[in-house]
Amino acid sequence: MSVRIRIDLSYDGTGFSGWAAQPGRRTVEDVLAQALERVLRLAEAPRLTVAGRTDAGVHARGQVAHADVPADPWEAGAGAALRRLARALPPDVRVHRIGPAPDGFDARFSALWRRYSYRVCDDPAAADPLRRHDTLWHPRGLDLAAMNSAAAGLVGEHDFATFCRRRDDATTVRALRRLDWHRDAAGVAVACVVADAFCHNMVRALVGALLPVGEGSRPPGWPSALLTAAVRDPAVRVVPPHGLCLEEVRYPEPGQLARRAALTRQVRE
Amino acid sequence: MSVRIRIDLSYDGTGFSGWAAQPGRRTVEDVLAQALERVLRLAEAPRLTVAGRTDAGVHARGQVAHADVPADPWEAGAGAALRRLARALPPDVRVHRIGPAPDGFDARFSALWRRYSYRVCDDPAAADPLRRHDTLWHPRGLDLAAMNSAAAGLVGEHDFATFCRRRDDATTVRALRRLDWHRDAAGVAVACVVADAFCHNMVRALVGALLPVGEGSRPPGWPSALLTAAVRDPAVRVVPPHGLCLEEVRYPEPGQLARRAALTRQVRE
Repeated sequence: MSVRIRIDLSYDGTGFSGWAAQPGRRTVEDVLAQALERVLRLAEAPRLTVAGRTDAGVHARGQVAHADVPADPWEAGAGAALRRLARALPPDVRVHRIGPAPDGFDARFSALWRRYSYRVCDDPAAADPLRRHDTLWHPRGLDLAAMNSAAAGLVGEHDFATFCRRRDDATTVRALRRLDWHRDAAGVAVACVVADAFCHNMVRALVGALLPVGEGSRPPGWPSALLTAAVRDPAVRVVPPHGLCLEEVRYPEPGQLARRAALTRQVRE
Repeated sequence: MSVRIRIDLSYDGTGFSGWAAQPGRRTVEDVLAQALERVLRLAEAPRLTVAGRTDAGVHARGQVAHADVPADPWEAGAGAALRRLARALPPDVRVHRIGPAPDGFDARFSALWRRYSYRVCDDPAAADPLRRHDTLWHPRGLDLAAMNSAAAGLVGEHDFATFCRRRDDATTVRALRRLDWHRDAAGVAVACVVADAFCHNMVRALVGALLPVGEGSRPPGWPSALLTAAVRDPAVRVVPPHGLCLEEVRYPEPGQLARRAALTRQVRE
């Protein structure tokens, strides 16, 4: 008998070749699976399913994964698992919560939406060297009002092919629920980006289309005009990964989990 | 003719052997002086005076320094200095402000007080791997109320010899204005420590005396009892440098700067 466990975690993406296991590379998936194997004394590393398959260098503060593990070692190890994981994991990965998942839970397919942040510092007076690992330095000042005006034209359900690495077998239609910028207490420009799901490179391409608007080299209507063109435009620069962080994954109430997962699979596959 | 300039800066202490120049070591003082020499096109690196001579590994978000530089190159380079410093400095040092200092200003001796923070995470659910460079991980939960009760007994003007590395020629009497703990929005325990000035290792020794109180292995009266003993106590562990950050240096109104500097010199020397 096996039990499905939900794992909430965060990581500094700097030292990882992204989430997904790749031979010969240090990935979050491998590091976490090996730590779970050790801490729960499993016969082998569990297979993990994740809400957001982050790319190399991308961070996460609210990543969610699930694994199906044999019930006996889980029952034996559950109580001490969180503290033991804190010792077993390297300091660039922290598990915040680990416990049995509700019926029908699937870390990937049950999710309603994902929220990412992207941090850009455009002001020497606001630059914090302690945050340089998760903040893009931009040498010219940004007009956030212009960027928000441009961003408003991107929100909604669209074919985001312009902002995605094209894969033949998959739709690039996504529902972008929120895309806006604010300055945090220190003066850093922070994008909040929420969608049901994202295609590959999408957040970094959206940010890359908004920065030229912020510095005045493109008009606020430019990003939504690109969207209409519906093909990848080389004028859109994909910004570096280190400003990007998966902040939150939202799931429906327990009773709705299985239905949501079935619906997502149907749309996505 | 020379002009005194004030420089406000921050740095990630991880890669530095502290502030003060030392032969063969990478220090903030050397890196900043060399960048100023280049950016202002000076004949030699300027001598710097700093508010807080931070130790190896200690960070700063609100460090203040001054330098006396020849008036001509300063006049020529002042306008572009901030942006040029952003390019000339390595990413672990950022200058936030640079400009002429008011009459009587001395970064070290005019200061009224220094404020430091010390960050401790005692909860796996609150651990943020992106902040591990400036946050101490503490594997046992801390009772902040007990630590604040203990801290209250340390505030005031005392001989802090117990919490200082003794130097024969200098007083260890300091006015500790504030020492208290709170949890930030993420749940991290943060100490706020304010004093007119600090002797060597003082903040890290104060924190080291409070952590055993927080975990219940010493009573809240222990740190102030140590203070009364007035000698360095080996039971006080000096906590690691990476949780410590110089957050702010406060100066009096411009008219009071010279008087404050004269007063400080008289007391300190």
